[in-house]
Amino acid sequence: MAGEPSTGPLQRLMDELKRLPGVGARSAERIAFHILKAERKEALALADAIIATKERLRPCSRCFNLAEGELCHICADPRRDQSQIVVVEQPKDLLNLEATGLITGVYHVLMGHIAPLDDIGPEDLTIGALVQRVRAGGVNEIILATNPTLEGDATALHIKRARRHGCVSYASSARLGAGFTD
Amino acid sequence: MAGEPSTGPLQRLMDELKRLPGVGARSAERIAFHILKAERKEALALADAIIATKERLRPCSRCFNLAEGELCHICADPRRDQSQIVVVEQPKDLLNLEATGLITGVYHVLMGHIAPLDDIGPEDLTIGALVQRVRAGGVNEIILATNPTLEGDATALHIKRARRHGCVSYASSARLGAGFTD
Repeated sequence: MAGEPSTGPLQRLMDELKRLPGVGARSAERIAFHILKAERKEALALADAIIATKERLRPCSRCFNLAEGELCHICADPRRDQSQIVVVEQPKDLLNLEATGLITGVYHVLMGHIAPLDDIGPEDLTIGALVQRVRAGGVNEIILATNPTLEGDATALHIKRARRHGCVSYASSARLGAGFTD
Repeated sequence: MAGEPSTGPLQRLMDELKRLPGVGARSAERIAFHILKAERKEALALADAIIATKERLRPCSRCFNLAEGELCHICADPRRDQSQIVVVEQPKDLLNLEATGLITGVYHVLMGHIAPLDDIGPEDLTIGALVQRVRAGGVNEIILATNPTLEGDATALHIKRARRHGCVSYASSARLGAGFTD
């Protein structure tokens, strides 16, 4: 049926949906027909959210979190403690930590972790920008909240060694949930 | 986090994704971050396919299958046997039957089934248009391929009784796959 003129857009939608993680042929069909039957407004809201995510979001110039402007909403928030930096691997990890409501400080998103086998070295991450933030002063505490994996631990270790200023305490994401403020 | 300015588009995307069938909070997050990281072209192709499905598809004026123009590609195909009409409930069912490659005739999409409990009567379906197609002549066979459910069977029975012209044979979708040409 692919390429047939009349079901063209629907077939194309199913093909595109199948590229998404966790969406197989069956789910793609279900979702495509859901979109077909959905209110015009609802379907277009989804398309618009995809476009907005792609077009409007860029890395925060300070912490590399997702931002719509120069700074992300956390860096731009005067109520956040700028002297405490929580270092995470991905914007997703930041989102999860924010959901706990326990973080009063700000973040630094590394945009990955050191993984020599995948050819990802420290220079591919935002470690240089983190060191500059710390050098600029005003930072009392850096909490390394990389993921509790081999790569996450290696990345945390690398940052610990690279530090020149401030106090560095270490907490894995897993432990953060249990007792963050020790 | 909902409504926060900087993760606005991403949060909105997750919220919209969660409305889709079979997509929970976790999948929505995974898909949203996949879209965020995906090639711009790939993400925009998905948005475009959603818009095209919503904007360009409408019911075929003859059989109510999805069409981009006046007639769907099956009704417009001169190689199809216009004297044989396969009656299905939804465009989805038509797609599944087409995938078998066994149908040489054309279709009629009822756009549902009779379901008194959901307040869906025969007048909510395209049965009137089907009767008109048959009355217009040239139809030798109507194959009732409604779904093998209580509602599907009731709908088929209703059409059987409503028929005035042509020969009506009955086959449920389930049986169609096994031996269609008996």
